[in-house]
Amino acid sequence: MRNILIIGAGKSTSYLIQYFLDKSEKENLHLIVGDLELGNAQAILNNHPNSTALKLDIFKKEERQKAIQNADIVVSMLPARLHIEVAKDCVAHNKNMVTASYVSKEMEALNEEVKAKGLVFMNEIGVDPGIDHMSAMQVIDDIRAKGGKMILFESFTGGLVAPESDTNLWNYKFTWNPRNVVLAGQGGAAKFIQEGAYKYIPYHKLFRRTEFLDINGYGIFEAYANRDSLKYRSVYGLNDILTLYRGTIRRVGFSKAWNMFVQLGMTDDSYILEGSENMSYRDFTNSFLPYSPTDSVELKLRHYLKIDQDDIMWGKLLELNLFDKNKKVGLKDATPAQMLQKILEDSWMLEPEDKDMIMMYHKFGYELDGKKYQVDSHMVALGEDRTYTAMAKTVGLPVAIATLQILNGIIKSPGVQIPINKEVYEPILEELQEYGIIFKEREVPYLGYNPDNVAG
Amino acid sequence: MRNILIIGAGKSTSYLIQYFLDKSEKENLHLIVGDLELGNAQAILNNHPNSTALKLDIFKKEERQKAIQNADIVVSMLPARLHIEVAKDCVAHNKNMVTASYVSKEMEALNEEVKAKGLVFMNEIGVDPGIDHMSAMQVIDDIRAKGGKMILFESFTGGLVAPESDTNLWNYKFTWNPRNVVLAGQGGAAKFIQEGAYKYIPYHKLFRRTEFLDINGYGIFEAYANRDSLKYRSVYGLNDILTLYRGTIRRVGFSKAWNMFVQLGMTDDSYILEGSENMSYRDFTNSFLPYSPTDSVELKLRHYLKIDQDDIMWGKLLELNLFDKNKKVGLKDATPAQMLQKILEDSWMLEPEDKDMIMMYHKFGYELDGKKYQVDSHMVALGEDRTYTAMAKTVGLPVAIATLQILNGIIKSPGVQIPINKEVYEPILEELQEYGIIFKEREVPYLGYNPDNVAG
Repeated sequence: MRNILIIGAGKSTSYLIQYFLDKSEKENLHLIVGDLELGNAQAILNNHPNSTALKLDIFKKEERQKAIQNADIVVSMLPARLHIEVAKDCVAHNKNMVTASYVSKEMEALNEEVKAKGLVFMNEIGVDPGIDHMSAMQVIDDIRAKGGKMILFESFTGGLVAPESDTNLWNYKFTWNPRNVVLAGQGGAAKFIQEGAYKYIPYHKLFRRTEFLDINGYGIFEAYANRDSLKYRSVYGLNDILTLYRGTIRRVGFSKAWNMFVQLGMTDDSYILEGSENMSYRDFTNSFLPYSPTDSVELKLRHYLKIDQDDIMWGKLLELNLFDKNKKVGLKDATPAQMLQKILEDSWMLEPEDKDMIMMYHKFGYELDGKKYQVDSHMVALGEDRTYTAMAKTVGLPVAIATLQILNGIIKSPGVQIPINKEVYEPILEELQEYGIIFKEREVPYLGYNPDNVAG
Repeated sequence: MRNILIIGAGKSTSYLIQYFLDKSEKENLHLIVGDLELGNAQAILNNHPNSTALKLDIFKKEERQKAIQNADIVVSMLPARLHIEVAKDCVAHNKNMVTASYVSKEMEALNEEVKAKGLVFMNEIGVDPGIDHMSAMQVIDDIRAKGGKMILFESFTGGLVAPESDTNLWNYKFTWNPRNVVLAGQGGAAKFIQEGAYKYIPYHKLFRRTEFLDINGYGIFEAYANRDSLKYRSVYGLNDILTLYRGTIRRVGFSKAWNMFVQLGMTDDSYILEGSENMSYRDFTNSFLPYSPTDSVELKLRHYLKIDQDDIMWGKLLELNLFDKNKKVGLKDATPAQMLQKILEDSWMLEPEDKDMIMMYHKFGYELDGKKYQVDSHMVALGEDRTYTAMAKTVGLPVAIATLQILNGIIKSPGVQIPINKEVYEPILEELQEYGIIFKEREVPYLGYNPDNVAG
C-alpha cells in the first residue's frame, strides 16, 4: 500500500478524496486525511476501508513530522500561508508534495534543495491557478510548434452560480472563500498591456473598467482585471507579447454594483471600526456616510452614490438588508471588510441543492506567415450540489491526478514547479476530460484592440 | 558661550537660524549648523561671528556623535525618520533635544531613559503639529478652568499661497515638501466623530467630502479630513467629546480637482511604472486610461472623469500640460506619485518673490451651566518671499523659542513630550505674538452638527 497524506479536509477536498478512494484498490493506495477537527476527516472518508482519518495540528511539530514521515506523498490543502512548514518537512524526509496554491517566495527558496534531492513539489495545480496554466500552455505550445508568434493572450476565470441556482439580484453566491471575494483587487493597481501600451487601474476604478465576454452558448459575461497580468509574461514565456490581460468573470452588472461597496469604503480591511460588535447593519452603512441630524441613511446613500429612483442598484442593496436597524453584525473589533463579509454571508451562501459553475475563457492571438489569427477556448464546469461543487471538482481533480502521476513516476522532473510543461499538463488535461472538464476551441477572426492598425 | 547644534539646513530653517543669530549676543549663544552640504549651512549663516557651519553626515556615527557631544542642546530639522539616531546619541551624551516632527514609536520608547536622566526631548513643536497643539490647549484649558465641558473640537490648518501670489487655476503652489502634498490622505481611511457618530472616509472619497470654512475676513475656504482625528482624544484629554474633526485647508475647488488625480490613480506610490524614464506627460496620463486605437487621450479622460465642455476642471489639467507629447518626466523606475510630483513641480513651485500663507482655524464647543457655547479662533501668517516663508516662520520660531527656553531652564519637565502643558505653551505663544503669530478669538453661537437636537 502507498500512503497518500492529505492535510486539511476543507471545502475543496470532496472530489480530491473521492478520486483517491475510487482508485485505491486498483492503484494500491491508502489515504490518510489529517485535519485539526478529526470529525471533518471522518465525515469525508466515511469509513472507507483504504483510509485513515487523523487528528492533525500542523502547528505541533512532532505530530506533523510523524504524519509526513509515514506518507509516500503529501498533498497540502491548507491555506496558502501554512504550506511552508509542511514543505520543509517534506524536504527533510524526502517526500514529494502537491499544493493548489501560488508559489510563495519561501517555497521558491526550497527549489535548489528539492532539485538536489530529486523531489517533485508541484504547486498551482488547482483551477486558477492550475487548469488555466495547463490549458493555456497547451494552446501556446501548439501555436509555437507550428511557427506562430504569440501577439495576444487574454484569460478569464470565474466561480459563479449555475443558471438554475441564480436566484438573487446580484446573480452571485459564495462558491469559495468569501474573504477572498471581499478583498478581491486590493493590494495594488491592476496592471496589464494592450497593443504594447501599459495600463494601470487603481482599485477604486477596477470594477468600472470591466470588459464584456461573449461565451459561446452561455451569453454575455463581464470581467474585471486581475491584479498583475504582467508577471505572466515571464511565467508563460510571452515576453514580447503586445496584449496580456487576465481577469475575473462575473455576471453582467455585478461589478458595477460591487463598486458601491468599494466607493463607500466597506471593503477596507486595514482598520477596526469603533464599536463594531454592537453595530446594526444600518449603523455599519451609516458610518461611511456624512453625518446628518435629519436625513435618512437611505437618502444619504442614494445621494452619495447618485442612485436614481428606478435603478436596480438600489434593489441590490435592499436585498442585503443594509438598512436594517435590528440585524446586528455581532463581530468584535472587526474591520469594514469583515463586517461586509458577514453581511454578505447572510444572503450569498449556497443552499444545500445549489449548483455552482466554473467558467474559463482564453483568447490567443498569433501571427503566422504574415497573417494574424485568433483561437478562443473555453471550459464550463457545473457543480452537483453544495458539497460536490464545480469549484471542488476543478481544484481537486488536477491536484489528485498530478499526485497519482507523481507517485507513479510519470511526472518526475524534480524541483519546485508549476504545471506549464508538456510532460505535466498533457496527461492531466487528458484525464480531466473523463470528468467533463473539457476545453472547446474555435477559430475566430483576429481582432485585438486595434483592428485597423491605427496609431494611438 | 552655549552651543546650539542645528542638524539639517533645509527650507524650514531660515527663521529658526535668524532667531538664534539675533539673540546670540544677548543670550551668549554659539550656533552650529550641520548639513550634508557644507554650502547650505554656510549660505544660511552668512559668516555670522557667533556661528559655525559644519559638514555633517549623520550616517557617519563618529562625526555625528562628536557634533552632539560638543553641543549644549540639539535641534534636529532632519526628515522625521532620521531623528532617532540623533535622539539616541542625545540620551547617551545627556543633551536636550528639539524636533518639529511627530513622536515616533522609537522616540516614545526613549521616554523612561530620557526622564531618568532629567532630559527634555520636545517634539511636535512646529506649526502642525506644534502651534495647533499649543493654541488649542490654551483655549481648552481656559474652558476647563471655568468649569466648561468640551463637546466639540474642530481644527484646520493649511499651507497656501498668499492672495497676491495666487496666480494659477489651482489656487495652490508648493510651500512645503511636495511629496507630502502628493501623498496626503493615503495610508488608511480618514476617521473622526461627529455628534457621537463615528465616520470613516476612504481615500478615494476624501477629496469629495470637504467642509466649508468661513475664515473671518479672508473668505470661504474648504477643508478635507485628516487621517486620524480620533487619536487627539487621548492627546488632548477629550475622551468623551461628541465631535472631533481635524482637516487640511485649501482654497475652494482645489480638492475636487485634486480628486481627478486620485481617481486616475496618479497619486499611487506603491508600484513602478514600466518605462517611466521615457514617458511624456501625455504617455503618463494615457497609462491610466482605457486603450483606444482612435480616440484621443483628451477625450478619453473627459469621458472617464465626466468633465463637461465648459468645466474649469479641464482648464486645470491643461495648465499642468498633462497632454503634452514632448515634455518628458525623465524619472527612472518612478511610481505614479513620483511622476505626478515632478509634473506638478513644473507649475507649482514658488517664484522668488511669491508669498505663502499659513492658516489655522479652531472651533471649540462646550457646555457650561446647561448652556452651549462656541469659541472660534484663527491665525493667519504671511510669508515675505520664497526663503522667508510663513511656513518657515511658523515651523521655525516655535522650535527656536522652545530651544532657548529649555536651554535657559524655563521649560524643564523632563521626558519625551509635545507642547500641551501650560508651562510650555504659554510663554511660547506669548513670544510668538511678537512675531505676528497671533490668534484671534470670537464667540459665535454654538451650532455643532445637530442644531435642533434631532435624533439620527
